[in-house]
Amino acid sequence: MATNTQVTADHNAPPITRLLAEFVAGHPSRGWSDEIDAQAHRTFMNWLGCAIGAAGHESVLSSLAAVQELSPAPQATLLGRRERVDIANAALINGIASHTFDFDDTHLKTIIHPAGPVASALLALAEKTGASGRELLDALVLGIDVACRLGNMMYPHHYDRGWHITGSTGTLGAAAGCSRLLGLDADRTQMALAIAASQPVGLREQFGTMTKPFHPGGAARAGPMSALLAKHGFTGSRRALEAPRGFAQVVSTKYDWDEVTGELGQRFEIGFNTYKPFACGIVIHPSIDACAQLRQVHGVAADQVERIDLRVHSLVLELTGKKTPKDGLESKFSVYHGCASGLMFGKAGEAEFSDAIVTRPDMVALRARVHAVVDNSIDEASVDLVATLKDGRQVKVFVEHAVGSLEKPMSKAQLEAKFNDLVVPVLGQQACTRLLDDCWSLAQAPNVAALVAHACPAQA
Amino acid sequence: MATNTQVTADHNAPPITRLLAEFVAGHPSRGWSDEIDAQAHRTFMNWLGCAIGAAGHESVLSSLAAVQELSPAPQATLLGRRERVDIANAALINGIASHTFDFDDTHLKTIIHPAGPVASALLALAEKTGASGRELLDALVLGIDVACRLGNMMYPHHYDRGWHITGSTGTLGAAAGCSRLLGLDADRTQMALAIAASQPVGLREQFGTMTKPFHPGGAARAGPMSALLAKHGFTGSRRALEAPRGFAQVVSTKYDWDEVTGELGQRFEIGFNTYKPFACGIVIHPSIDACAQLRQVHGVAADQVERIDLRVHSLVLELTGKKTPKDGLESKFSVYHGCASGLMFGKAGEAEFSDAIVTRPDMVALRARVHAVVDNSIDEASVDLVATLKDGRQVKVFVEHAVGSLEKPMSKAQLEAKFNDLVVPVLGQQACTRLLDDCWSLAQAPNVAALVAHACPAQA
Repeated sequence: MATNTQVTADHNAPPITRLLAEFVAGHPSRGWSDEIDAQAHRTFMNWLGCAIGAAGHESVLSSLAAVQELSPAPQATLLGRRERVDIANAALINGIASHTFDFDDTHLKTIIHPAGPVASALLALAEKTGASGRELLDALVLGIDVACRLGNMMYPHHYDRGWHITGSTGTLGAAAGCSRLLGLDADRTQMALAIAASQPVGLREQFGTMTKPFHPGGAARAGPMSALLAKHGFTGSRRALEAPRGFAQVVSTKYDWDEVTGELGQRFEIGFNTYKPFACGIVIHPSIDACAQLRQVHGVAADQVERIDLRVHSLVLELTGKKTPKDGLESKFSVYHGCASGLMFGKAGEAEFSDAIVTRPDMVALRARVHAVVDNSIDEASVDLVATLKDGRQVKVFVEHAVGSLEKPMSKAQLEAKFNDLVVPVLGQQACTRLLDDCWSLAQAPNVAALVAHACPAQA
Repeated sequence: MATNTQVTADHNAPPITRLLAEFVAGHPSRGWSDEIDAQAHRTFMNWLGCAIGAAGHESVLSSLAAVQELSPAPQATLLGRRERVDIANAALINGIASHTFDFDDTHLKTIIHPAGPVASALLALAEKTGASGRELLDALVLGIDVACRLGNMMYPHHYDRGWHITGSTGTLGAAAGCSRLLGLDADRTQMALAIAASQPVGLREQFGTMTKPFHPGGAARAGPMSALLAKHGFTGSRRALEAPRGFAQVVSTKYDWDEVTGELGQRFEIGFNTYKPFACGIVIHPSIDACAQLRQVHGVAADQVERIDLRVHSLVLELTGKKTPKDGLESKFSVYHGCASGLMFGKAGEAEFSDAIVTRPDMVALRARVHAVVDNSIDEASVDLVATLKDGRQVKVFVEHAVGSLEKPMSKAQLEAKFNDLVVPVLGQQACTRLLDDCWSLAQAPNVAALVAHACPAQA
């Protein structure tokens, strides 16, 4: 038996449940800069690609089979699939799909993956209500702001305690976004946040299992349900987030209220959202980027290379030091495989971490020619690479910040290439191209009907 | 900003996720004493009455309106109502209903109300699967054992931290029970527990709002969903309950593993379940009991009484000291109203805490004749009452343990009278009588079809 010290209650918290409700209900449509609005489009499009890409994964098949036992009404689209289910279960399954590859967006300040809970909830609800693209984007920015501000308030203590912060704050982001989309007033939005506050989802212990992507899925599901309950008069505590026995003080030992209230309505956390170019942990990204540059900038082909020497931060070998990965899953923890993939293909998407690629003889041989040593002068975000070619030449690449970081965001073309890689195998090139158009022009769409139609395979 | 000490992880926990899964999947049908089986019948019947009694309450109407927006399939019965919804939402709404009056069962060691999450999940699922009454009762005993053992493991620290323990352990009890009902093996049951572990529901801050009964409802909903996910191959951590970043260590600062493993399969926690005779906080129960005895044992009528003097534990006046309650809700916090009700009606069910009764002139006058003082020699479970009659006589009643306590459980007749008071206004006397028969003979029922048919109003 273990017993630890009790938490000391903070009885003087500001009324953040009310403040967030007023913000979500009252902030003007598109009340932010062009850059924030562009980020909303990128966040939505990146989320959509990730969800469609995983449409055939066993986590989706398994959760869909469970949901089918409820004979759900065909209200909302499952991305990349022909089945339709009710709003709440579409939010659940699309949320699971979008996080299945661990390839979705990251709010780096908190490690929250905000689109999974929020966008999954919103698209399902928008399909039912007939909301416009503009209304969906507004709700996305505001919902993500709520989730990430609550994350900032509690990070890192809440995460260190063992909560999967994406799911625990995601319920509130999803409820906020859905309240906005339903046009709830501040009082009802406050109730929706209160109802959602009682439903945090997610333990870090589940990492490595399907319950990890269940967390954003479960959080997404809580969004429309909390907002619909509030719409119909269901009540919760007006101080559900901040009271001594409320959300923050129960699930965290740190609660920095200023992170919620500071510059509310002026600074938008979606501005700090990033997108992964490579379908693996961020710690390998500088090395993959360096190898892709070797190929793309310096014109070096894989078969020209005698050896590659990396100088890396210690975390790289600690977390991803597998020299001879045996399958796709293991290859995600191999900086050697990441480098080989960057050099061979110029990329490292979900396909490059498949069993078939990992076991290819040329990849096995190339991985063996990659060597890494720890150099304490190298930052976690950086890598120093020297390629020795068979003709004796040496090519050096130093990456300070990898592509996909806040300092070096993915370009529009790179985001589209990632989307393409995820979507074409599921829907084909024509639908993929149409969907990209739908995403970039979402603010002008009268509703989401065309977009969701394009996100499903054509009927046989 | 407030920051508290971090929790020290316990890396040496026994494998309770596995042990509970093996227990739930493998324990023999009716593998317990007659008394435990009788308790299962009482727990089910008491829960059924509470849920039917609240069928017209605004918490039910509001949550049903939200659920109707999902156009749910008519798979399962809403108790006391004509509408049918899918399994998961029937579990949700029946769970909300059953806790709405705060009149349901109490596992006194932990203040868990175990039937709300577990029975609500099981009846909805049993209706769909065609399970027998025996199978339902088996799953009820085992599901409640899981919830209450996890409660014992964490109580009181988990509750003190701010979790509504009924909802946080209820998800696991409901998932365990549903796994049993679906006939999952130990491996799949382990996964169902893991999936449920990521979904604790409930903050004490919500007390006094509809989100309080939402907690057992939300926990009930997680039961069939977690079990169905596991049935279809969804995975979670095999150590989801006990790992350093698993359920117990994330949501509690106390985790006494022996409370889970000790006498598992021999001692059944449903044996410690109790039922409330009065629809208010337990602290008033001895006083109401004393007044009811005054009427029933001593033949004293309300209009014979000049004054009543109570000697009570300090908590009674601290929690329920409202001398002049203005409405039904306030009257639940008035020992004076409770006493008046016990003397006037011989009972204090939900009807006796209605606005109409509270404002009746004879009740107002009778309350004014009740006086209470704190006596430090009186136990919390007891009361010392002296009634002074208008003819000068004095009648003394000492209650050591109130009816409904473990020491003085409600008799079968008292449970039936409570059931009657709750059910007859909703379904009429004939249906109520049939339902009582259904409850007492549940172990012999080939399925629950007749019971759920009797639990709905006849079609117009």
